[in-house]
Amino acid sequence: MATQFAGVYPAPPTPTFDDGRVNEAALRALLDDNIRHGVHGFWMAGSTGEGPILDDEQRAVVARVSAETCKGRAKVIMHVGAMSTASAVKGAKAARAAGCDAVCCLPPLFFPTTERARIDHYRAVADAADGLPFFVYNLPQLTQVETVPALMEQFKRAIPTLVGVKHSAPNFADIRVFADMGLQVFSGWGQLPLPALTMGAVGSIDAPLSLAPWHYVELYDAWKRGDMPRAQALQDAIRPYVDLVWMYGAPAHVCKVVLSARLGIDCGSTIPPVNRLNADEQREVLRVATALGLTTQR
Amino acid sequence: MATQFAGVYPAPPTPTFDDGRVNEAALRALLDDNIRHGVHGFWMAGSTGEGPILDDEQRAVVARVSAETCKGRAKVIMHVGAMSTASAVKGAKAARAAGCDAVCCLPPLFFPTTERARIDHYRAVADAADGLPFFVYNLPQLTQVETVPALMEQFKRAIPTLVGVKHSAPNFADIRVFADMGLQVFSGWGQLPLPALTMGAVGSIDAPLSLAPWHYVELYDAWKRGDMPRAQALQDAIRPYVDLVWMYGAPAHVCKVVLSARLGIDCGSTIPPVNRLNADEQREVLRVATALGLTTQR
Amino acid sequence: MATQFAGVYPAPPTPTFDDGRVNEAALRALLDDNIRHGVHGFWMAGSTGEGPILDDEQRAVVARVSAETCKGRAKVIMHVGAMSTASAVKGAKAARAAGCDAVCCLPPLFFPTTERARIDHYRAVADAADGLPFFVYNLPQLTQVETVPALMEQFKRAIPTLVGVKHSAPNFADIRVFADMGLQVFSGWGQLPLPALTMGAVGSIDAPLSLAPWHYVELYDAWKRGDMPRAQALQDAIRPYVDLVWMYGAPAHVCKVVLSARLGIDCGSTIPPVNRLNADEQREVLRVATALGLTTQR
Amino acid sequence: MATQFAGVYPAPPTPTFDDGRVNEAALRALLDDNIRHGVHGFWMAGSTGEGPILDDEQRAVVARVSAETCKGRAKVIMHVGAMSTASAVKGAKAARAAGCDAVCCLPPLFFPTTERARIDHYRAVADAADGLPFFVYNLPQLTQVETVPALMEQFKRAIPTLVGVKHSAPNFADIRVFADMGLQVFSGWGQLPLPALTMGAVGSIDAPLSLAPWHYVELYDAWKRGDMPRAQALQDAIRPYVDLVWMYGAPAHVCKVVLSARLGIDCGSTIPPVNRLNADEQREVLRVATALGLTTQR
Repeated sequence: MATQFAGVYPAPPTPTFDDGRVNEAALRALLDDNIRHGVHGFWMAGSTGEGPILDDEQRAVVARVSAETCKGRAKVIMHVGAMSTASAVKGAKAARAAGCDAVCCLPPLFFPTTERARIDHYRAVADAADGLPFFVYNLPQLTQVETVPALMEQFKRAIPTLVGVKHSAPNFADIRVFADMGLQVFSGWGQLPLPALTMGAVGSIDAPLSLAPWHYVELYDAWKRGDMPRAQALQDAIRPYVDLVWMYGAPAHVCKVVLSARLGIDCGSTIPPVNRLNADEQREVLRVATALGLTTQR
Repeated sequence: MATQFAGVYPAPPTPTFDDGRVNEAALRALLDDNIRHGVHGFWMAGSTGEGPILDDEQRAVVARVSAETCKGRAKVIMHVGAMSTASAVKGAKAARAAGCDAVCCLPPLFFPTTERARIDHYRAVADAADGLPFFVYNLPQLTQVETVPALMEQFKRAIPTLVGVKHSAPNFADIRVFADMGLQVFSGWGQLPLPALTMGAVGSIDAPLSLAPWHYVELYDAWKRGDMPRAQALQDAIRPYVDLVWMYGAPAHVCKVVLSARLGIDCGSTIPPVNRLNADEQREVLRVATALGLTTQR
Repeated sequence: MATQFAGVYPAPPTPTFDDGRVNEAALRALLDDNIRHGVHGFWMAGSTGEGPILDDEQRAVVARVSAETCKGRAKVIMHVGAMSTASAVKGAKAARAAGCDAVCCLPPLFFPTTERARIDHYRAVADAADGLPFFVYNLPQLTQVETVPALMEQFKRAIPTLVGVKHSAPNFADIRVFADMGLQVFSGWGQLPLPALTMGAVGSIDAPLSLAPWHYVELYDAWKRGDMPRAQALQDAIRPYVDLVWMYGAPAHVCKVVLSARLGIDCGSTIPPVNRLNADEQREVLRVATALGLTTQR
Repeated sequence: MATQFAGVYPAPPTPTFDDGRVNEAALRALLDDNIRHGVHGFWMAGSTGEGPILDDEQRAVVARVSAETCKGRAKVIMHVGAMSTASAVKGAKAARAAGCDAVCCLPPLFFPTTERARIDHYRAVADAADGLPFFVYNLPQLTQVETVPALMEQFKRAIPTLVGVKHSAPNFADIRVFADMGLQVFSGWGQLPLPALTMGAVGSIDAPLSLAPWHYVELYDAWKRGDMPRAQALQDAIRPYVDLVWMYGAPAHVCKVVLSARLGIDCGSTIPPVNRLNADEQREVLRVATALGLTTQR
C-alpha cells in the first residue's frame, strides 16, 4: 500500500541569498519551526516556494535539505514542475535521491499542449521519481490547463504511482470527485481548511500554514477528534493569516519577511521577476504580522 | 430587525404550458411537495426557474402563486433580475404586492456596465420592492460581472435594505467575507451545503434542493443540532443529485421532467432557447432519477 | 440570387423619450442625415441601438420607421436578438412585415446553450423572417458564445437563408474564413474598416459610422476605385471617432448626445441599466465631438 | 537615430538534436533558405522557436549562429524571454555579444506580477542588452499579461531603448495605437500581413513566413510599390500556409518537419513537453506541405 499523506502541509517560501543560492540554514530553521508546531508534512518548491523559477541545482538543494531536516518527523512532497520536461525530470530524480516522500508536478506551462503532451510530461516525471508517489498540481488560474475529472482519469491510467492532487482550482466540488477516485486530495486554499475536510480532502497545502502552523494544526486535530465547535471557531478566525499573505500581491516575499523576523535569520527577497515588497510595504507587513503574533517564536 | 433567512431554499423550475403561461397548479404542487419535506423557503424565478427570460406577466404570476402557497409555511425570495431595469422593477413591485418575503436581483446583463450603472440598477429595484429585504445575486460565470467585496460595500452603502447574497461565484472564500459584513449568505452550489455552512453561510439555494429536499433538510438539521457525523454522511452522498441536475447541460428541463413524474402533473418543457432534452435524454434522466428515489412521493 | 449587402452600414443608437417610447422623428432625422452622406445601409437595434433590451413594441417601431425612411435609398438589416426566442421571432416578423431587407440575430444570451439550442434558436428566427436574408451576430465578448467556423457550417446547413455575419469577434482572421464560405461578412470594428476590406469583408458595421458617415463612405469609395493612398489616409485618421464613441464606456449615450446636437432633436438618454453619461461627461463628449466637426450639419 | 526594422521577419523553429543541442548546420541552412528568398530579418527563439524553454546555453548558440549567418544580409531580433529575469538577462547579454540587432522579451511568466515587477523585468533585460534596441512581446493569450497602451507608455518611460513591439494580442486596433506612440510594430499574425500594414505595422513576424518566405516577401514588395491588386491577391491566398502550421496544434514540429524535407537536413523534433506530431501526423503534414510546394527548394 502506498504511503498515506494527510493533515497540515505548509507550502513554505524558499529562503535565498542575494546571489540566488538557497539559504540552507534558513530553510532548516523554517522547517524546524513548523515541525515543532506539529505539521504533518511539507510541500516544497511550489508557487510560494518559487519552484518553477528555480534552476535544477537550486531545486536539488531544496529537496536535499528538506528530506534531511524532515526525516522521521514530517513528510516531504517535493514539487518539481518546471518549464521543460527535462528540468522537471531532474527535479524528480533529485527528490528520489534525497529521500523525499513524494513528488508533485505542474502541467506544461506557457505552450498550449494536447492531452497527449500533458500525459507524456507527467509520465516522464513520475517515471523519473522511480516509484515515489506522484501528485498532480491543479492550478488552472496560472497554467491555463485544468485537470478536470476526465483528464485525471487519463492520468490515472497512464501513471501507476499517481496517488493524489494538490487542488488549487476554484472548482471546490472536484475535491469530492477526486476523492471518490481514490486520490488523496489536498486543498490548495489556506482560507478553506475546514470546508475542504468536509468535502473529503485529506488536508490543506498553502503558504499561510507556514506562518501560523499552530492554528492549522489545532483546527485539523479538533476535526479529527470530532470537536466541531473548536474546529469551527478556528476556521472562523483564519482570514487574517490569508489576508496577510496576499498583501500587495506578493505572497512569497510576505512569507519571507514574516519568517525572517520570527526565525531571526534573513530569508532574503524573491527571485526576479517574482513580486517584491518595497521598504514601506515590508514595514506594514511586519506591523500586521506582529499584531497577529506571527513574528515571535512560540 | 430585518427578517432572517436561513436553511434550505430550493430554486425550483417554473412549470409552464406550451403556450408559455405559467402552470399554476403544477407550481403549487411543486411548492407543497418541497414544503412537506421541511424546506425553509424558496428562491423563485432564478436561473433554473428561467427567471431572466420570463416576461413581466409570467414573473408576476410566479410571485403571486409562490406567496399564496407558502404563506406562513415557508419564506419566498423572489428573483426579479431581467434585461431591463424597468422589467426588474416591475418584478419587484409584483413581489411586494404579492406578499413575498424578499427580492433578489441579477446585475445588469449583456451590456458592460460601470459600477455606477450597477448601483443605480440595484437601487431602482430595491426601491421598487418598497422595504422588502434585498439580495444580490452573484453569478459571474453567466453575467461577466462579479460582485467582489469592494463592490458589495458600495451596494451596502447605496441600498439600506440589502441583507444578503445568493453567492454562486466560484470564489468560495467570499462567503466568509460577505458574512463578516453582516450579510446573510446563501451558497448557490448544491454540491457544497456543508462546506458552505462551515464558511458562515446561512444555507444553500440551488436546483437539486427541489428534487431531494429531504436530503438537504436532514443535513441542515443535523448540522444545527451538532450531529456532524450525520451531516457529513449526508454531504458525502450528495453528488448523485447534483450530477442528475446537470445531465445533458439542461438543468431546468431535468428538474421539470423529474418533478412531473413525482407530482403526476406535467411541468412542461423549457422556454426557448433554454436547453431541452430530447425524448431519449428524458428517458435516461427518468431512469437515473427513479434509481435515486426521486420520482415517487414520499 | 440573394440581395447583396456591402459598404458602410452605421449601427445607430435608438432615440427614445424618457417614457421609453421610440422617438420616431429623431430616428428619421438620424437616418436621413446618414443617408445624405451616402451610407449604403443600416444595422438597426444592435448593441449601440440597445436592441436586446427593447421590448417587442419598441423593436417593431424601429423596424417600421427604418424600413419606411430608407426605402429605395439604403438597405436595412434589422437586428432582432433578444433574451427569448419568442421575442426574437416577433422581431423577425415585424422586420418582414415592415419591409426590412434582412434580419440579424444574437445567439442565446445568459443561459449556457448547447449547439442544438443555438441552431434551433436561429432557425426559428430565420423561419419567422420568412425568406429575408439572415445574418449571424458574432460577439463572443458579450455573449460568451463564439460562432467559430465549425459552428457556422452547422448554421449554414440548418438555415437556407443564412447569407452573412456581423463579425465583432476579436478573431480578425475569421473574416476570411467566413468569406471563403460564401458569406457576406461585415466587420464590427469601426477602427478597422480598411483592414477588414483587405480580409474579404464586404464592409463595416459599427457605431462610429453613424457619427462620421462621410469619413467611412469616402474611405470605402476610395478603396472601391483602387485609390489606396486616399483610403489609407482616411484609415490613418479614424481613431478619434472611435475613441469618442468609447468615452466613459457609454457608447449608446455618446452617440445620442452627439447626434442630438447635430440634428437639433433630443435623442434622449439610454434605457436603464445601459451606461449613461452625467452632465459633466456629456459636456466633455460634446467638446470633443465639436472639435472633430461632428456636431454641425454638413 | 535607432536602427529601423521593417518587412518580413520569419519566426523560425530552433533545429535541435535528440540530446537537446542546437543543430547549428540546420539552423544555418534554414536561415540561408529564408534569406535567399528576400526576408528582411528574423525573430529568433520566439514561441515557435521554443525560446522560453531553451536553457541559457541553447539560447546563446541560437544568438551566435543567427548573428553570424545573417550578418550584412538580414537583421536579427533575438527573443530572450524566460522564466527568470536572470535567464533573460543572460540571453540579452549573449545577443549583444553575438552581434544581434535587437532583443525582444516576453513579460514575466506564470507568476502574477505587478506593473512594477513587469517594468523591472524589462528594464533589467534592456539594460543587459547594453544599447541594443528593445522590443516588447505582447502575447496575452499565453502570458495572461496584456501590454495595453497605458502599460506600454510606462515601459517607454522606463526603457530608453524601447523601439517596438511584436504584437500578437487579438486587439488588432492597438497596432495603430502603438504606431502612433512612435513604435515599430510587427504583427504576430501570419494570416494578416496586409491588414497589419494598413494599420501601420512595419511588417509581420510569424512561423508561416519561414515556410513560404517568397509569398510574404512578394506581398510586402507589392504593397511597398503600391501594387494593391497583387498584394491583395497574395493576401487572399495566404490561409493554406497558416492552416498548415497549426495542423494538430503543433506549430514548432510542423515547421521542423516541413523544413527538414526542404533543406534535406533533419531539424529534429520538439523539446518536451512542447506538442509533437506522431508518425501518421508527420506524413499528413508532409503531404499538405508538398501540395503547397513547400518541400522543395526554389
